[in-house]
Amino acid sequence: MKIHNFSAGPCILPDEVFQKMSEAVLNFNNSGSSIMEISHRRADAQEVMDTSIQLVKELLQVPDTHEVIFTQGGASLQFVMVPFNMMKVNGSAAYLETGAWAKGAIKEAKKLGNVEIIASSADQNFNYIPKDYTVPSNVDYFHCTSNNTIFGTQMKSFPESSVPVVCDMSSDILSKPLDVSKFDVIYAGAQKNMGPAGSVMAIVNKEVLGKTGRDIPSYLDYQIHINKGSAFNTWPVLAIYGVMLNLQWLKNQGGVAGISKINQEKAELLYSEIDRNGLFTGTAVVEDRSEMNATFVLNNEDLKSEFDKMWKEAGISSLNGHRDVGGYRASMYNALPLESVQVLVDVMKAFEQKFG
Amino acid sequence: MKIHNFSAGPCILPDEVFQKMSEAVLNFNNSGSSIMEISHRRADAQEVMDTSIQLVKELLQVPDTHEVIFTQGGASLQFVMVPFNMMKVNGSAAYLETGAWAKGAIKEAKKLGNVEIIASSADQNFNYIPKDYTVPSNVDYFHCTSNNTIFGTQMKSFPESSVPVVCDMSSDILSKPLDVSKFDVIYAGAQKNMGPAGSVMAIVNKEVLGKTGRDIPSYLDYQIHINKGSAFNTWPVLAIYGVMLNLQWLKNQGGVAGISKINQEKAELLYSEIDRNGLFTGTAVVEDRSEMNATFVLNNEDLKSEFDKMWKEAGISSLNGHRDVGGYRASMYNALPLESVQVLVDVMKAFEQKFG
Repeated sequence: MKIHNFSAGPCILPDEVFQKMSEAVLNFNNSGSSIMEISHRRADAQEVMDTSIQLVKELLQVPDTHEVIFTQGGASLQFVMVPFNMMKVNGSAAYLETGAWAKGAIKEAKKLGNVEIIASSADQNFNYIPKDYTVPSNVDYFHCTSNNTIFGTQMKSFPESSVPVVCDMSSDILSKPLDVSKFDVIYAGAQKNMGPAGSVMAIVNKEVLGKTGRDIPSYLDYQIHINKGSAFNTWPVLAIYGVMLNLQWLKNQGGVAGISKINQEKAELLYSEIDRNGLFTGTAVVEDRSEMNATFVLNNEDLKSEFDKMWKEAGISSLNGHRDVGGYRASMYNALPLESVQVLVDVMKAFEQKFG
Repeated sequence: MKIHNFSAGPCILPDEVFQKMSEAVLNFNNSGSSIMEISHRRADAQEVMDTSIQLVKELLQVPDTHEVIFTQGGASLQFVMVPFNMMKVNGSAAYLETGAWAKGAIKEAKKLGNVEIIASSADQNFNYIPKDYTVPSNVDYFHCTSNNTIFGTQMKSFPESSVPVVCDMSSDILSKPLDVSKFDVIYAGAQKNMGPAGSVMAIVNKEVLGKTGRDIPSYLDYQIHINKGSAFNTWPVLAIYGVMLNLQWLKNQGGVAGISKINQEKAELLYSEIDRNGLFTGTAVVEDRSEMNATFVLNNEDLKSEFDKMWKEAGISSLNGHRDVGGYRASMYNALPLESVQVLVDVMKAFEQKFG
């Protein structure tokens, strides 16, 4: 039976990525060697990294002021790298608190300086995006999280800012067009729309670096990764090959503009059903709903085992919500086909017919 | 033609690891899902991490005082994590300087405190292991590098120390039996004897943590990774699956005791030929020669293109030495079969017959 994979990440990737990765593990580019056993310094490995960086630049129309790097440690290490690279000694930063990952970023920045939480949606368990705030002009940078995987909210616009803007886009990067020039640091763990878990991508405005007065540990220093073309140390060749294949697939879908139309269609299909169906309620405020992660609950929790049985029988996997929200979470990343959302919607309709 | 892969890392891994990885990329444990698309929190993914940790403990007989963790960022991030976790505020550490990677570790420690280089082989381009030194008792820890991949040297014994001992074992971990109890932190990038590039393993004596007075960034904190069972954030499922398969293969070879015999046999075969053959000279001092990386040069550099042609025709790959040493480097990690070393030795003999 076909599996409809709504996992929040690591998550579904295109079938052709799996096929090509599987082949390359045995025989990379007909070299007779596995992609796992070649040096990252070999020309054909170097091409994998260079192509991945180039594809990000092309797909997101990254301006020349910015550079693209791939490192390791996920967004959690970016939480540390951002203040090391952006916060002056005895400096400060403004953070928008929109969920668990934003809180994680705030926690790390506080270890290096003063953090001002300029707005928070903690009062309603992060079910909305705060909008009534002003980014101060006397901080070193402003940090926000564009998509909150756990709570199903997404920033549809970004505030005016006179200071550098840093954004964690781990769960909605490459899902739609983006004006990169409005951001100074964008970072994103690969394991949603970019590839397998094991790498994290950053897009950095080179002009904002080198201003903190800190002696930055080398691995945490954006400038070093930029200078070394993301090969400061041994990079995860297998993981980046997965990223490259995934970016090539995205390009063939019409890039971010092309995939954005399908992502909108998927989100509309599911949210329409959540709103129409009397047995379910969406948890996020309507205007802040995420196109990537739709969170919803049963109005009658007593029916949980019945609904769970039905979606599992339909081949749906990984629909359970995060423990912080409960209920259900349908993650609809780039590689999830419309067909899978239709299967979920059909199950919700059948469930209504039976128990409504 | 069979490839004899002498790459210094990422390097050869067992064929059965490639086969099983390739299958799991398409269909992990007959679940119908790729190992790249499942959540790291799923029970069958969790089992991959738990089994990997357990196998390290079993293979190296890790005592209960120590814990095993897997993180990302390679040994280069460990260079940063070690002083953050081990060096007191305004503290100091003693480092042994035996090569390029030791220098990298020293550079990062200096950013956090006072570093005393208690011995160095820089005077002879790191072709030996210094032995005439005493580890001071008034430092926070002593750091050394057990195997110097670039220079072909290896520590055959470790000094007495009254302070905690930290060792970078990236390129000889799991190649032979080891008394873990004599070390307080051992770390090793996976991409030599452990698996594909993309993870780094650390074995940490829990009793030495929490004594620095530092507010450690979360990702850099050993205690957090220990507390979270190496799942503080999304870990690289694909890479760790490769580690698990490789550790299982090693267990089936008779563990570190079994592989150690073969590694000794391979090293003896090659070093005997280097010493016997009048056209070559080994670059490392004999008593400090590495079992993992044999470095040697041609006595007559004019014959380089002839020798290069011969070994390439024999199916040998990645034999060129690092630019810091020149000449040749034969890396003989666990998965390299004795047969491949024999092919190299046969080429060296044939080369001597033709040009000797």
